[in-house]
Amino acid sequence: MNAPAASSHLLPAVAPRPVPQVLLDALSARFGPKQYSVAQAVREQHGRDESSFDVPPPVAVVFAESTEDVADAVRLAAAHAVPVIPFGSGSSLEGHLLAVQGGISLDVSRMNRLLRLDADDLTVTVQPGLTRKQLNEQIKDSGLFFPIDPGADASLGGMVATRASGTNAVRYGTMRENVLALEVVTASGETLRTGTRARKSSAGYDLTRLIVGSEGTLAVVTEVTLRLYPLPEAVSAAVCSFPSIEAAVRTTIQTIQMGVPIARCELIDVNTVRMVNRHSNLTLPESPMLLMEFHGSPTGVAEQAGTVQEIAADHGGKGFEWATTPEERTRLWTARHNAYFAAVQSRPGCRAVATDTCVPISRLADCLLDSVQEADASGIPYFLVGHVGDGNFHFGYLIDPNSAEERATAEALSDALVARALALEGTCTGEHGIGLHKMGFLVDEAGAGGVEMMRTLKRALDPLNILNPGKIFVL
Amino acid sequence: MNAPAASSHLLPAVAPRPVPQVLLDALSARFGPKQYSVAQAVREQHGRDESSFDVPPPVAVVFAESTEDVADAVRLAAAHAVPVIPFGSGSSLEGHLLAVQGGISLDVSRMNRLLRLDADDLTVTVQPGLTRKQLNEQIKDSGLFFPIDPGADASLGGMVATRASGTNAVRYGTMRENVLALEVVTASGETLRTGTRARKSSAGYDLTRLIVGSEGTLAVVTEVTLRLYPLPEAVSAAVCSFPSIEAAVRTTIQTIQMGVPIARCELIDVNTVRMVNRHSNLTLPESPMLLMEFHGSPTGVAEQAGTVQEIAADHGGKGFEWATTPEERTRLWTARHNAYFAAVQSRPGCRAVATDTCVPISRLADCLLDSVQEADASGIPYFLVGHVGDGNFHFGYLIDPNSAEERATAEALSDALVARALALEGTCTGEHGIGLHKMGFLVDEAGAGGVEMMRTLKRALDPLNILNPGKIFVL
Repeated sequence: MNAPAASSHLLPAVAPRPVPQVLLDALSARFGPKQYSVAQAVREQHGRDESSFDVPPPVAVVFAESTEDVADAVRLAAAHAVPVIPFGSGSSLEGHLLAVQGGISLDVSRMNRLLRLDADDLTVTVQPGLTRKQLNEQIKDSGLFFPIDPGADASLGGMVATRASGTNAVRYGTMRENVLALEVVTASGETLRTGTRARKSSAGYDLTRLIVGSEGTLAVVTEVTLRLYPLPEAVSAAVCSFPSIEAAVRTTIQTIQMGVPIARCELIDVNTVRMVNRHSNLTLPESPMLLMEFHGSPTGVAEQAGTVQEIAADHGGKGFEWATTPEERTRLWTARHNAYFAAVQSRPGCRAVATDTCVPISRLADCLLDSVQEADASGIPYFLVGHVGDGNFHFGYLIDPNSAEERATAEALSDALVARALALEGTCTGEHGIGLHKMGFLVDEAGAGGVEMMRTLKRALDPLNILNPGKIFVL
Repeated sequence: MNAPAASSHLLPAVAPRPVPQVLLDALSARFGPKQYSVAQAVREQHGRDESSFDVPPPVAVVFAESTEDVADAVRLAAAHAVPVIPFGSGSSLEGHLLAVQGGISLDVSRMNRLLRLDADDLTVTVQPGLTRKQLNEQIKDSGLFFPIDPGADASLGGMVATRASGTNAVRYGTMRENVLALEVVTASGETLRTGTRARKSSAGYDLTRLIVGSEGTLAVVTEVTLRLYPLPEAVSAAVCSFPSIEAAVRTTIQTIQMGVPIARCELIDVNTVRMVNRHSNLTLPESPMLLMEFHGSPTGVAEQAGTVQEIAADHGGKGFEWATTPEERTRLWTARHNAYFAAVQSRPGCRAVATDTCVPISRLADCLLDSVQEADASGIPYFLVGHVGDGNFHFGYLIDPNSAEERATAEALSDALVARALALEGTCTGEHGIGLHKMGFLVDEAGAGGVEMMRTLKRALDPLNILNPGKIFVL
């Protein structure tokens, strides 16, 4: 594999497409004032996300309340070749929701019902606007849970779109492994189902997994059937401090290589521990740490934790502390999940340029340590957290959005990190998606041939290029 | 969901495409006598598989020894719009290897090298002709293993093509979950890579999983990167006899619903136990049985087995017998894997019409018991085995291939079973693929819209329709 070239991360210049008044009139007539808006505030709310881009908002917003609403909106837009941008909870980090080619935002957040819980089969079918926390709240009496946890309380449709994962993926997999079936509306406004409720199938092309991770560019998701898991009999969380990031990472690598079925294994660097302590009123020891969780029978959990404690001790890990009550655990994980916000608030007015590389586990130390050194040398404040059990970690470079120099420095750090991850046979994005920001990286990673195959699929399924155009690649 | 219509399972009548002499001359010149053959015996060997169809063999066979060989063969065939049928070990059950539209067979069985073992990352990269047993033999000193086990010693390229699974899938997943990356040759003869060695990625469309399960119709696989697993510290197998199939199935359902991480959970009905006893010189008690395996720490394995033993006892399970030595276990699993051959040999000259339905676990008893009753009533001898932990099971109706009546009866049984499985929200094929035999079922299952989306993908990626044409659907 050749060393990848440094990539452009600038927004491609594609003019917004015209939105004829006749389409807006038709949408207004079909959806009425409760489901259709051109108000500036509503459009702006739908024209941004957690990414650091500024582009004009969509021309109008449709609030879908059913699959038929979605199909009608897409059909009307298709008749005028106008872009449609599906919108869930707005927590994308990669500019997925931005109207870079104009068009309308299709907000599915009102489609937030749990349609069917089949507890005996460990499956649930939901509408795309339901969030992961709402799902877990609604099924809590069933003895089951949905483990995929990207931090933000994302909508499940959005999690399908970005192939989300997060803290539990090291044990339970990502959306790739946990979506059984979908109902989608195609670019021509047709509704179809992919997959069944069977746990496995060899029935033709895997349309489900083609849509999972397609970032709203191939179809609009209107129903999602997910795998659930029995709540573990016992859960215990542990916090362990290390003398260095390297020691924490080496502990992780060995844990994975030994096949310990650890449920969560999160790295937090010392900067970020400080930010989290301040934001969440905690007194975590200010050194690099691993936040871990073990699921299983009481004996199994104790066995796993014992093994990891020994490995950690070999690497100078100290203060292996337990959090066995649900309240303590929630406090720890909430702190972890708030790391992003804690970091952003640590520098008022800043924006985070977030990275998302993921490498084979044996390369984790190589990839991470050099990047830490570069970030330290840059002088830009940053946070560093990682789902290190998967080889996935995030830097967030906290820049002054008005400083072209800081932005350039952050992008250069990100470029170097991605180049390193690709050279180590990893990926530029473990879980956030390509969106607007990583298009150049995608070419480095998948090669011109791989991206051309993706474009061919896009052209075949969306010949008018109306579904979230200008994301992943520009046609 | 509407009740599916009974489906046609007849071979569609599509004439073989002409293969110009100039192509054969070019192939002969490029590959020479060691890698190119038009000998009748060689062609016939490549024109059949374990399915019950008879069609003319391919016109020629190319033995590829490298990715370049594959690319050149595909390019030459593409220049004349001639079909190319990838061939691994010939163990397909669904007619995947048959030259229904003529063309050449592209045998990759000589591409059987293990290219790279990255034990620290729990990954391995192999050529497509390597078989799963060869792989496990070659990595046995690493402390790792590759769990996917479809019974036959299939080539790993073939297992990619059919999205294979088998006995360990209940714990370790299928090829869908365990292929990290591929190298493929496209329909135009271009070589590209999909995926990386990272455990997860959100980098654009999931080309890897689009190719996995595409039955050689979208690209020819030339390298496969797989996930490996640490050999479990402890393994124990258990055999348990039940008063009825229902009791065995209910034990399975409860085991899965409780979240026991059982590694294998196989049903063998009483007919099949008899056949296996005779074929493998065993003295298994002649009643329906579950063959189970537990992986983990010694304590974990004992805990899992204890739980299942209790559940089994509640359902009248008797004689929970242990096989803890590797030799005993191998004998049991070999007997299980030989069930197909034991059955076929029980009726000399017969052919098996095999089914492959998979349903949500709570529907397993409903689906299975009615189908057993119908099979018993038909008078056709059959075997019945199942990866019941996944809700997947196989009837094999043992018919006289010269009896149109028996074939019709078997197909009617299969039709009824598939209709039942689909009505119960399952799939017509859990692991064998669509091939030639299940095209009508695919329409019932995926709907006209779903199949049309598949056709659109095929047309986009293989506009000349040369890669294994006439499988999954007819363009």
